[in-house]
Amino acid sequence: MQATVLYGPRDIRLEERDEPKILKPTDAIIRLAVTCVCGSDLWPYRGIQKIEQPTAMGHEYCGIVEEVGSAVKTVKPGQFVIGSFCISDNACPNCRAGYQSGCQNLEFMTGAQAPYARVPFADGTLVATPELPSNDLLPSLLAVSDVLGTGWFAADAANVKPGSTVVVVGDGAVGLLGVLSAKQMGAERIIAMSRHESRQKLAREFGATDIVTERGGEGVARIKEMTKGIGADSVLECVGTLESMMQAIRSTRPGGSIGYVGVPHDAHLDMQPVFFTLVRLHGGPAPVRRYLPNLIKLVLDGKINPGKVFDLTLPLDKVSEGYRAMDERRAIKALLKPQ
Amino acid sequence: MQATVLYGPRDIRLEERDEPKILKPTDAIIRLAVTCVCGSDLWPYRGIQKIEQPTAMGHEYCGIVEEVGSAVKTVKPGQFVIGSFCISDNACPNCRAGYQSGCQNLEFMTGAQAPYARVPFADGTLVATPELPSNDLLPSLLAVSDVLGTGWFAADAANVKPGSTVVVVGDGAVGLLGVLSAKQMGAERIIAMSRHESRQKLAREFGATDIVTERGGEGVARIKEMTKGIGADSVLECVGTLESMMQAIRSTRPGGSIGYVGVPHDAHLDMQPVFFTLVRLHGGPAPVRRYLPNLIKLVLDGKINPGKVFDLTLPLDKVSEGYRAMDERRAIKALLKPQ
Repeated sequence: MQATVLYGPRDIRLEERDEPKILKPTDAIIRLAVTCVCGSDLWPYRGIQKIEQPTAMGHEYCGIVEEVGSAVKTVKPGQFVIGSFCISDNACPNCRAGYQSGCQNLEFMTGAQAPYARVPFADGTLVATPELPSNDLLPSLLAVSDVLGTGWFAADAANVKPGSTVVVVGDGAVGLLGVLSAKQMGAERIIAMSRHESRQKLAREFGATDIVTERGGEGVARIKEMTKGIGADSVLECVGTLESMMQAIRSTRPGGSIGYVGVPHDAHLDMQPVFFTLVRLHGGPAPVRRYLPNLIKLVLDGKINPGKVFDLTLPLDKVSEGYRAMDERRAIKALLKPQ
Repeated sequence: MQATVLYGPRDIRLEERDEPKILKPTDAIIRLAVTCVCGSDLWPYRGIQKIEQPTAMGHEYCGIVEEVGSAVKTVKPGQFVIGSFCISDNACPNCRAGYQSGCQNLEFMTGAQAPYARVPFADGTLVATPELPSNDLLPSLLAVSDVLGTGWFAADAANVKPGSTVVVVGDGAVGLLGVLSAKQMGAERIIAMSRHESRQKLAREFGATDIVTERGGEGVARIKEMTKGIGADSVLECVGTLESMMQAIRSTRPGGSIGYVGVPHDAHLDMQPVFFTLVRLHGGPAPVRRYLPNLIKLVLDGKINPGKVFDLTLPLDKVSEGYRAMDERRAIKALLKPQ
């Protein structure tokens, strides 16, 4: 099969690889219905995160189960499944506490920008839909796998409640779906920080009530002005730089909460000024598995349409253009069709 | 009057100063019953925190109201009062949200290592006891003002619940009273990290079920071993160094909580490894005012005896010996008698 492999900075290739096989009794093989490029794929693509060797890319996935190992009990060939980008056994104490992204058997999914993928710990990682979904739902079901699940975790970690005032830092797909998540959780006011018109438009569609275009200190001053000098109840940090983290922290009221889901890069936080802000910080790789059943239901019931973040659709053999378009911010998120 | 002034590193002097006067209608003047040296006073005493000019020291206090400004309504001369080390109006949105240490009119108390002190925003800062307390309760009532209130906030911020497994990093007075607080909140297992025998003894008296003497990586390994490889539900960070913060973070289970109350010094946290631990961080200067009524009642009802952290009692004119004894860790905490 033709699979996506990153060789080095901006060197993405589609190359012939063996189709994946069952390696352990807990594995499943799935045929990808759709897959995509993640904002976090851009860290190694840009060379900011080093890779040791050519790396099979892709960790967002949904599709039809082709084959399962002998120990797999909850999914079977022919079913449509969505999985988390975090592979988990969903049985250890950390999973049972709702932190499947801290599973004692944690692995990160790879190799999903391809026609077929192997999913370890299939029972602990995959959730099947009751029926085969129609094609128009595929982008939204794919979004659940990571980008919506991550935006949802950001809102949950930031303690968004009915009536909350929420700020979202970052207008990538995760930030935009953080807006959607905050809306679903009943936030009254949702301020999206964005300076890109097309993204502002989608943010409003997802539920943003206000747009702030300023960044850094000016952005913080604007948020303070809009919240009577207090700051927001909940702030979603969906970027991962030191600047965006400090922008989030300084936009939060004392006792308010920050959900941070952008993987921090070169972000050494000076904890003394953070200490005096009295904020709460919670984040990390999203425990998407916890949210899968609920989010899949919201999509199937037509309550949410997170697939709107895909503003570019390409056949898999044009994957390198998907990376380029996202790198240059010409696209929010690129959907790939493997077959 | 003779008041305590810090001139520079390890240069603490008792010198003649004017008695404080009412400066604003919201002020009160109190006659200190007892006062003390705080662990945080050691940062400037040791020269780690620079001072710009000779500084009147002391922010923990209780005593008799001598005089109040014309706007003060809730306390009156002759009453015994305890106040927070944070001066707050207790009326702004941050105060109403329970974060008086983030008050929009926040000031930090100073000059309480003296016979008399001025307390701004008396209505928002002080709480009176129903009657004049007996002398034997004075150390415990004084402890409420900061060191107990801060340990209590650490446990609260670390989300200690009935049945929790709790780790306390730091065996200073705040850490020890963090143990007491966790016990009051119903923690099942309380692991105190301490290598000093007298502090271990007091930790056990306050409710510690286990003592861990190892530090750093070895300390973390020990905690993991004691918690089936998972980590603690709640960790109280009561020191404020990078090492102690990382020790706390690595001792916490995914989704668990850290309450950090040691003022961070030179603590630049690399957020990428912190991200993958999935912990919750909350801390800052404790909103003691929120807890005062409850903590005063626990002391007056004889339910808790936080005053046990004072293992050295000195007349005010021996204040410099109090600093020395704490600096050299010969004393946990020094009580000062002003009259």
